[in-house]
Amino acid sequence: MPDAPAAPAPSDASSPLVGVVMGSKSDWGILGPACETLAELGVAYEARVVSAHRTPDWLFEYAEQAEARGLRAIIAGAGGAAHLPGMLAAKTLVPVLGVPVPATMLNGVDSLLSIVQMPAGVPVGTLAIGKPGAINAALFAAQLIATTDPALRARLARRRDERRDEVLAQTLP
Amino acid sequence: MPDAPAAPAPSDASSPLVGVVMGSKSDWGILGPACETLAELGVAYEARVVSAHRTPDWLFEYAEQAEARGLRAIIAGAGGAAHLPGMLAAKTLVPVLGVPVPATMLNGVDSLLSIVQMPAGVPVGTLAIGKPGAINAALFAAQLIATTDPALRARLARRRDERRDEVLAQTLP
Amino acid sequence: MPDAPAAPAPSDASSPLVGVVMGSKSDWGILGPACETLAELGVAYEARVVSAHRTPDWLFEYAEQAEARGLRAIIAGAGGAAHLPGMLAAKTLVPVLGVPVPATMLNGVDSLLSIVQMPAGVPVGTLAIGKPGAINAALFAAQLIATTDPALRARLARRRDERRDEVLAQTLP
Amino acid sequence: MPDAPAAPAPSDASSPLVGVVMGSKSDWGILGPACETLAELGVAYEARVVSAHRTPDWLFEYAEQAEARGLRAIIAGAGGAAHLPGMLAAKTLVPVLGVPVPATMLNGVDSLLSIVQMPAGVPVGTLAIGKPGAINAALFAAQLIATTDPALRARLARRRDERRDEVLAQTLP
Amino acid sequence: MPDAPAAPAPSDASSPLVGVVMGSKSDWGILGPACETLAELGVAYEARVVSAHRTPDWLFEYAEQAEARGLRAIIAGAGGAAHLPGMLAAKTLVPVLGVPVPATMLNGVDSLLSIVQMPAGVPVGTLAIGKPGAINAALFAAQLIATTDPALRARLARRRDERRDEVLAQTLP
Amino acid sequence: MPDAPAAPAPSDASSPLVGVVMGSKSDWGILGPACETLAELGVAYEARVVSAHRTPDWLFEYAEQAEARGLRAIIAGAGGAAHLPGMLAAKTLVPVLGVPVPATMLNGVDSLLSIVQMPAGVPVGTLAIGKPGAINAALFAAQLIATTDPALRARLARRRDERRDEVLAQTLP
Amino acid sequence: MPDAPAAPAPSDASSPLVGVVMGSKSDWGILGPACETLAELGVAYEARVVSAHRTPDWLFEYAEQAEARGLRAIIAGAGGAAHLPGMLAAKTLVPVLGVPVPATMLNGVDSLLSIVQMPAGVPVGTLAIGKPGAINAALFAAQLIATTDPALRARLARRRDERRDEVLAQTLP
Amino acid sequence: MPDAPAAPAPSDASSPLVGVVMGSKSDWGILGPACETLAELGVAYEARVVSAHRTPDWLFEYAEQAEARGLRAIIAGAGGAAHLPGMLAAKTLVPVLGVPVPATMLNGVDSLLSIVQMPAGVPVGTLAIGKPGAINAALFAAQLIATTDPALRARLARRRDERRDEVLAQTLP
Repeated sequence: MPDAPAAPAPSDASSPLVGVVMGSKSDWGILGPACETLAELGVAYEARVVSAHRTPDWLFEYAEQAEARGLRAIIAGAGGAAHLPGMLAAKTLVPVLGVPVPATMLNGVDSLLSIVQMPAGVPVGTLAIGKPGAINAALFAAQLIATTDPALRARLARRRDERRDEVLAQTLP
Repeated sequence: MPDAPAAPAPSDASSPLVGVVMGSKSDWGILGPACETLAELGVAYEARVVSAHRTPDWLFEYAEQAEARGLRAIIAGAGGAAHLPGMLAAKTLVPVLGVPVPATMLNGVDSLLSIVQMPAGVPVGTLAIGKPGAINAALFAAQLIATTDPALRARLARRRDERRDEVLAQTLP
Repeated sequence: MPDAPAAPAPSDASSPLVGVVMGSKSDWGILGPACETLAELGVAYEARVVSAHRTPDWLFEYAEQAEARGLRAIIAGAGGAAHLPGMLAAKTLVPVLGVPVPATMLNGVDSLLSIVQMPAGVPVGTLAIGKPGAINAALFAAQLIATTDPALRARLARRRDERRDEVLAQTLP
Repeated sequence: MPDAPAAPAPSDASSPLVGVVMGSKSDWGILGPACETLAELGVAYEARVVSAHRTPDWLFEYAEQAEARGLRAIIAGAGGAAHLPGMLAAKTLVPVLGVPVPATMLNGVDSLLSIVQMPAGVPVGTLAIGKPGAINAALFAAQLIATTDPALRARLARRRDERRDEVLAQTLP
Repeated sequence: MPDAPAAPAPSDASSPLVGVVMGSKSDWGILGPACETLAELGVAYEARVVSAHRTPDWLFEYAEQAEARGLRAIIAGAGGAAHLPGMLAAKTLVPVLGVPVPATMLNGVDSLLSIVQMPAGVPVGTLAIGKPGAINAALFAAQLIATTDPALRARLARRRDERRDEVLAQTLP
Repeated sequence: MPDAPAAPAPSDASSPLVGVVMGSKSDWGILGPACETLAELGVAYEARVVSAHRTPDWLFEYAEQAEARGLRAIIAGAGGAAHLPGMLAAKTLVPVLGVPVPATMLNGVDSLLSIVQMPAGVPVGTLAIGKPGAINAALFAAQLIATTDPALRARLARRRDERRDEVLAQTLP
Repeated sequence: MPDAPAAPAPSDASSPLVGVVMGSKSDWGILGPACETLAELGVAYEARVVSAHRTPDWLFEYAEQAEARGLRAIIAGAGGAAHLPGMLAAKTLVPVLGVPVPATMLNGVDSLLSIVQMPAGVPVGTLAIGKPGAINAALFAAQLIATTDPALRARLARRRDERRDEVLAQTLP
Repeated sequence: MPDAPAAPAPSDASSPLVGVVMGSKSDWGILGPACETLAELGVAYEARVVSAHRTPDWLFEYAEQAEARGLRAIIAGAGGAAHLPGMLAAKTLVPVLGVPVPATMLNGVDSLLSIVQMPAGVPVGTLAIGKPGAINAALFAAQLIATTDPALRARLARRRDERRDEVLAQTLP
């Protein structure tokens, strides 16, 4: 695989392909790893605080402009009664990926069900609860873009190969 | 209690005090009993289909106008990833009562958690899953209005007395 | 919005509009934030220990007197097999708001179901498990009262605006 | 075991040892088998409709008089947010046995948790959800009484022997 | 209530009325409070390690001798796939009270269901998960014995009164 | 929107863009609606039976060839311990969408968790349990392809508009 | 694979290698398929009703004799508070396979947890809830025996090949 | 029992009878106790990192060679959407024992369901969540082998006797 490592995309690219949104700055601990993964893969992204319940108008505005601004996917993380991913999906045709954030006593079961159980007509591709889900949302977004970006596709393949080799090299006590 | 029985309010009153909204006509089987209860109590109401995911703009419009139109409470029923009550609550200061509709394989657990687990700042008063919850949403709305409407208060008291007397009169085989 | 900030209501007002009750002093960590929120909004309230299981007669007495004492809403928090909100609701027509307290190994799922799954006839408006639910119970009570109190309504609107502006001002790393 | 079969106790004995109470006539399908089991064992019982939410005063009265009326145990069945067993237990020192009735979309999980998760101080001996639990509540009450009633003890032992022999005699296809 | 406080029963009474059994010494943290409660109430008891899975023969022996040894109730605590209470109940007509011990990653849900969901024919009176359940098992056993022991009945009544008075005396910040 | 309705794609297109796979013919009742949705939108697809547990080699072969065969997305439905979506995702960089099929006594909770809780590194975009999830998987795949196919994008927009208008035209009894 | 199909073993072989036990004749609908599977594979088995709660002594006797009678595995199905598999495992070193029977309102979740969550020291190999679990218990037992029985191993391999070929031959509408 | 204690098997025997596999080195804390148990019992084993999602080809290779390499059982531990045990079982007739690893916010419920709910045809004998399950997987594997290894059978019996004696010797405070 001859393709050289991508230079990390700036955390707030001028022409982002992926929008990473979360209901509060306090969700950064979960959603940050999505941004890191996108940066590692050289995918231009932006990260924004968008709260379904405290800034509903801004949520609608963000969703309405997403397509025209060139976003190819939106990653939305939310906890508890998590309405952010579904409401974004209701307002745009850009694919929305939902990340359940474990923010309540219910460890993310509430946000998982609030995100994944969408009615027919408005899809949200849902990932696992917490950090693994955030990382996978970034990878899914990258795979989605890679279907028309061979260089990114190559970086994704290399990343997988590296992970595979790491596992094969692990030794047990 | 000298107050005479209220004449049933028309199902679509010109000056409704309570708005009963649901995501689809198919939710009528669950939300209908809320309307019947309001009618029995002589509380003017309106019933509307408002879908969070299929008519998000109409949802916002409905919520934005609720207060000026004189609504004292909104009853919102929804199933699955139930975003309707919470998004209404995010857009109005009119008290919102949420009724989880059992519309999926999960028997309403998904809608219960999607409705009740709201983050601090935007409250939804949540009732039981299904018909009992719909009836109770109507009663709660009536109790809320009755705090400043003695005649309605009297009708509510009479209804309770009747239910108590029905129980006391029940005999077992 | 010209209305000046309300002076905090004394924690034990002489003419409370909202009663905040809990089964034990140890629930104060959860219910205290409800009181703080009411104080911030200038809503007169009282806070009392009322245990459904250890002081059932006091529970009945409290509920029976609530309306005559001028309470417009009761906020009741309880954990485990949480019977306090539902039994209060069975004894008064004052609207009761239930807050599930996470007091057992089940993280509040037991109290949530014990509070929300009320049978038709006796409603309890249920909020989220724990502190967010307590704060929201206070906000719901305030919204309920604000339907006939424009100054409180203005304070609620200002609070929402402030929260919105806080979110809009948040920046991510 | 020389003891002759007990003559069935009248369904509403003049000096009942066990009170079987339920929130509604509609619970008879679940609680009826408890009564049949008591009758088969010759334990005098009474069956009553007592609703925690619709007849709270009658609930308190029933509990307050239970001991003086000679009840040795109370079997209480309830569904949903099941408060009947726990509130009876709060008002009497007569042992209370709780039977979760599957009355909602949650198949009795809500009533199980509402009954069994009592706080320290007020015990409810909880049985299985539904009919098996109702039958076992009757057996538990009988075993409790049998600790001071050898004839009943003998009838219980014979019943167990019969069930054992039925199992041993079963053949498979 | 003129009855003087009972002298604490020795932890291993020569003529115990209640047997407190647990699957392992490590369950003492949960079941110990049951013993303390019995001691406070002056109920003679014994505490024993009996493991359903590691000492099944000893379990059967214990159950077979319980009645002849004068036990009026057995309190059995167990975690995970909790078989101890149910198997004791299968081998004796002495009333068995089950305490779910939170010993696994499932926080006692597994032991609760393993204990409470007994089939018709073999009852186990089940209490709450963990310490509150253990204390309540002791109280239930005492109430059971008190139906024929007025002095114990008086001590139980006094204990309740004290708890009530403690609650009534609590003040909030 | 001038674009004419797409002619339905043949159920087994020669150059499919989406592969719809399921563990058994018996899953067609759930996954069939995904195919219908793709056909309505004019997206070329193929439908295949691929069982993770009964045809693991065929699963690997299908995944290995997916990219070269031109698939832009794979929709995989599975029930119970649902391993099909995750194992496909482990073997290809083509985006995989998982649909939990309710095939066991657990109503799809088992398949939901088996599909969505993927570890970091191998993403599966998960949709709702059952038919709504299958339809949404098709819509998500179409949205994904539409990011580079304006005509499809227009058909998706028209479909949304129609659904919106259907809701707005609904009247309640 | 030259090995001819095995003649079905009699349903009650004189020298059974596998014991299939269940708590009641009514479990035959679930456990019967285990017997059919063993018969198809030519594995000698016996089927018996053994109830943990109604015939505990027979359970102990069955377990104590299992090894001497030549059993290589025991398949035990049980519902609700399912104690049969675990108690058998406590009394024998013959491998025990547990099948959760969906016999209560909880759809087998109670029996699954009652069987699988065994404490360290006494293993039960647990299969899926219901019929699929019963069939798989039979297959597991056969695989276990096949490790020292090449002809059986060949029959198992053929069975798998047939199932694979059935899947590969399935066509979709 | 005259058989002397077995010398511990080397952690990576040249002719292992049991393969212990896990998705990552980080699972060693859970699976290590399985290895220790096998060593204590003198059962030759090997421990390997095999990841279903990161090294799917290596997983297939491991499963395909297991039988020829002489493995009598495979113990596979995995967390989250745990596909390792089921995919191994799909590729070999060697009995597979699954250990749910608590690796996510769901405490192992996700891995339990992902492992145990296998469809008919491909069995996985599932043990408890976490360390107790890992130890029991080792014991089950040993019991399986002991059906044709009397010396191992004797060591297993001695181990049980020791555990029994430890319990019988425990004293409570």
